[in-house]
Amino acid sequence: MCEANAYLLKNNSETLIMEAVDKVEPEGDGIKLISIFGDQKFIKGKILSLSLVDHKIFLAEIKS
Amino acid sequence: MCEANAYLLKNNSETLIMEAVDKVEPEGDGIKLISIFGDQKFIKGKILSLSLVDHKIFLAEIKS
Repeated sequence: MCEANAYLLKNNSETLIMEAVDKVEPEGDGIKLISIFGDQKFIKGKILSLSLVDHKIFLAEIKS
Repeated sequence: MCEANAYLLKNNSETLIMEAVDKVEPEGDGIKLISIFGDQKFIKGKILSLSLVDHKIFLAEIKS
């Protein structure tokens, strides 16, 4: 399986926010993550980068 | 390996723009794609969605 882990980058540290992410969908001012188990999480932020071979998704919060 | 194929969605049709994509990096008004072979492509557009289990990345052009 080719799911990935999603990390939030903040102050130079990575926080794991969701494992086994299947779908990544930008929506409005954030990103919707859906895991292979169907769990959903909405992060107010943006995609910094994805590294599929490393199974990593990096997001950053948008300060409002 | 967990690379994906990148498609451009336009007028309800999908066009394959890059195979074996490893890295996806939003940059300025577009998206930089880097394949597992090191090839790079810059698409002026945005990420519509990613489906990692299906190995698919969907992008849309930004009209300017």
